[in-house]
Amino acid sequence: MEISTEIIAVDTSEGFDVIDITDRVEKLVATSRLSVGSVVLFAVGATVALTTVEYEPGLVSDMADLFEKLAPKGADYAHNERWQDGNGHSHLRASLVGPSLVIPFLSGGLTLGQWQQIVLLDFDVPARHRDIICQVMGQGAR
Amino acid sequence: MEISTEIIAVDTSEGFDVIDITDRVEKLVATSRLSVGSVVLFAVGATVALTTVEYEPGLVSDMADLFEKLAPKGADYAHNERWQDGNGHSHLRASLVGPSLVIPFLSGGLTLGQWQQIVLLDFDVPARHRDIICQVMGQGAR
Amino acid sequence: MEISTEIIAVDTSEGFDVIDITDRVEKLVATSRLSVGSVVLFAVGATVALTTVEYEPGLVSDMADLFEKLAPKGADYAHNERWQDGNGHSHLRASLVGPSLVIPFLSGGLTLGQWQQIVLLDFDVPARHRDIICQVMGQGAR
Repeated sequence: MEISTEIIAVDTSEGFDVIDITDRVEKLVATSRLSVGSVVLFAVGATVALTTVEYEPGLVSDMADLFEKLAPKGADYAHNERWQDGNGHSHLRASLVGPSLVIPFLSGGLTLGQWQQIVLLDFDVPARHRDIICQVMGQGAR
Repeated sequence: MEISTEIIAVDTSEGFDVIDITDRVEKLVATSRLSVGSVVLFAVGATVALTTVEYEPGLVSDMADLFEKLAPKGADYAHNERWQDGNGHSHLRASLVGPSLVIPFLSGGLTLGQWQQIVLLDFDVPARHRDIICQVMGQGAR
Repeated sequence: MEISTEIIAVDTSEGFDVIDITDRVEKLVATSRLSVGSVVLFAVGATVALTTVEYEPGLVSDMADLFEKLAPKGADYAHNERWQDGNGHSHLRASLVGPSLVIPFLSGGLTLGQWQQIVLLDFDVPARHRDIICQVMGQGAR
């Protein structure tokens, strides 16, 4: 078994942002030249999360509505009272979804469904620079 | 370290369905003959997710109610307007729970709690055929 | 690649409890003497979950409010009717967040953000003894 680790860096827009990183993860698996294994993805930061979704504008808009319903931006949060950074809702949403994702690959290709993309969800208020750790573990040079 | 990968295939019922795959995962760990490591489980598809739960009819019914409350089937979704497939709620629920799960095993047995089962949550509208990638990574032939 | 597995044991308080286990995970990575790899964390039990959060009293209180809103303690649950243990809400919350977390490490240190801590969320009603399986997988003695 071998491991290679790279950082996927993205710049997000102000407010809720959904960024499709599927192609970049696929490329890192291909570059590793490993055949069988898993990719560990980890979003660095407490107001950002990783999941999969069918990445299309309708669902991006529906996700914005969902998270606004679950943890509204304008509600009262003890975090905001203490720290005055106005991102209590961002923290709650990120903790709910979670920062880590593990995706197996076979014959050098991710085992995603046809309409299943890997996305970073940035819940913070300002635009942010984000790092996703992408660790490819596996065996079998192709 | 060694890796073996198998597919757990299941057929789900129409509407929300919860399928206990614990025994099948346990069997794949046993078949690998590895002693210590982790199982990576990944649900293929954007309207399906994996988690653990005490698998009993009461909680299956309670989960149906929870997800109906969080992302109701009958609400307006931009996804449905664009694609007319009526499963916007299924996508949101699946992204919230997430497609991947990693469970360590010791002495060839999963480290689950006594009342903790591994379940596939199928949120899609029609009955579906589903694949779960089950990758056993570890060492130490028993 | 090498694997070492340890158990992180914690005692939780009655009601919702959030326990920061970051230092204990960091220590197990350091003890493994591995340089590059990932830590698999798994919460044993069906009413407990793992995620990351900025661990400060404001957010702990906000999380309590969030989960009370998503799956209220006092609501009617089929689980409670069947088993009379009054923790239907605990099960739903734990399944929503999920029991597993995978965090890469580089140069022997976790790749967490500066304000990102690893937390156990205990949703059960009574105080509990909890085990978290901590499996360090990686390579490269430092």
